[in-house]
Amino acid sequence: MSESQSVTSRSIVAARSDFQPQQRLDPVSVEEPLEIRIGETPVAVVMRTPGDDFELVAGFLLTEGILDDPGSLGALSYCSDATPPNERNVVEVQLSADFDFDADALRRNFYATSSCGVCGKASIEQVRLKSQRQPTAFTVEDEILKALPATLRQQQAQFERTGSLHAAGLFDPRGQLLAVREDVGRHNAVDKLMGSFVLGGHWPPSASVLMVSGRTSFEIVQKALLSGLGCVASVSGPSSLAVDLAQETGVTLIGFVRNGGYNLYTHAERLLCAGDPLSTVATRR
Amino acid sequence: MSESQSVTSRSIVAARSDFQPQQRLDPVSVEEPLEIRIGETPVAVVMRTPGDDFELVAGFLLTEGILDDPGSLGALSYCSDATPPNERNVVEVQLSADFDFDADALRRNFYATSSCGVCGKASIEQVRLKSQRQPTAFTVEDEILKALPATLRQQQAQFERTGSLHAAGLFDPRGQLLAVREDVGRHNAVDKLMGSFVLGGHWPPSASVLMVSGRTSFEIVQKALLSGLGCVASVSGPSSLAVDLAQETGVTLIGFVRNGGYNLYTHAERLLCAGDPLSTVATRR
Repeated sequence: MSESQSVTSRSIVAARSDFQPQQRLDPVSVEEPLEIRIGETPVAVVMRTPGDDFELVAGFLLTEGILDDPGSLGALSYCSDATPPNERNVVEVQLSADFDFDADALRRNFYATSSCGVCGKASIEQVRLKSQRQPTAFTVEDEILKALPATLRQQQAQFERTGSLHAAGLFDPRGQLLAVREDVGRHNAVDKLMGSFVLGGHWPPSASVLMVSGRTSFEIVQKALLSGLGCVASVSGPSSLAVDLAQETGVTLIGFVRNGGYNLYTHAERLLCAGDPLSTVATRR
Repeated sequence: MSESQSVTSRSIVAARSDFQPQQRLDPVSVEEPLEIRIGETPVAVVMRTPGDDFELVAGFLLTEGILDDPGSLGALSYCSDATPPNERNVVEVQLSADFDFDADALRRNFYATSSCGVCGKASIEQVRLKSQRQPTAFTVEDEILKALPATLRQQQAQFERTGSLHAAGLFDPRGQLLAVREDVGRHNAVDKLMGSFVLGGHWPPSASVLMVSGRTSFEIVQKALLSGLGCVASVSGPSSLAVDLAQETGVTLIGFVRNGGYNLYTHAERLLCAGDPLSTVATRR
């Protein structure tokens, strides 16, 4: 896969322990939807890093048990009637004519069954349509933000005997932990956390920070947004589509909260640095 | 969530740099399928860690955009006609009578649309039915195994500028790297890797080790098995269901390959320790 397909850049504010926050371009992994079709039948949409797309489709068909022999694989092509015509997010695969596949077995990660032309922009639009609430305006001191991963780890310690549980925690703007949940799946940890409020019949507080132990994908930001949250933070990095979704829907997205620093990707207005808005403190490189 | 639900144990061989390999019980995170039903209609199966199940369902419905207000949530219950009756893997949720939901929008992670009674055993059986090949008998020296993560990281270095790409590599029994692929999604990295062989019209070599950068879930072992591979290794830990699937289908599963040590979870017959079968070297604690 070529680096130009898999890595892009976004404007961020980088804060480190040894220099003043600075605005700069920073690399992020590309995430885009790929629709897989058998003949003309859409069977799945996966969120992936572009590049090696035909390999992804061929491997997906084998490892999900649709293709029972590599020899049965026919031609693969990008959808020719895509809009725009150079769209690279729909792959059609031909299987031998007598090949019998069960479309139901493939109903996985169906983010969209849209017509040819599935793309990041459409994914964002779809989530925006489902979103009921506008994230609240509030501010968090960045010193409080920096302390959240340690609190999350501390809470997780009682279960983290296995080395394979993800955690999601919700914090108020003063850094008080409201709730934490764990699961082998990153998405499930967030769902359990949000569900702990929903079961009480109310929304999670919008003026709060969702801190997750794993990477921040499109879907994690989607889950925060549909829960009405205004801020998502992680010790790891976000994907390009996670950044774009957060930017377009008013969510503050922060990554790499570790070693006394962080990267602010979107909506800096919620972050304060020693009382001042981060945007006024940051220098330009 | 209670620790008894979320953590279980499996018999492993633990190898560390400072002691002889020893057989012992070790904690692993529990992974089990959960079927979510709206009324009596199954809408999704998610693989999750048991515990806080009603929260998971409530949060899933909100963050996937099915439930548009926490106030619309009705009663939740475990499926009463489950077999066995104490089955805790099917949750039925009631929504208000006029609630209109789009089942198509929910076609996500449908591992099974089986009748009440979905469980880990059924998930394993389903994968076994789809599996075409028996993993080959072969052996790997554990010194070679220990070196694989460094090789994988080295190969990944050219793309790992973003801090958010997963890698999957395939190695032959002498530790030679056959191919490596990267993606924001762990599953996609494996699919691309397998697809690189499938596109050539042949199976990946069964006598090889799949090394992944992330955690080893049920689905990762499934993908290895359906590709005919005999060995899966990771720097992190596996789930209970990943261990059970590997055990029952003849796949060697190794976790925590780091700091000169590893945990062997299943099928020790493929691992050698200085020329001797690991099982003959390991002491019992």
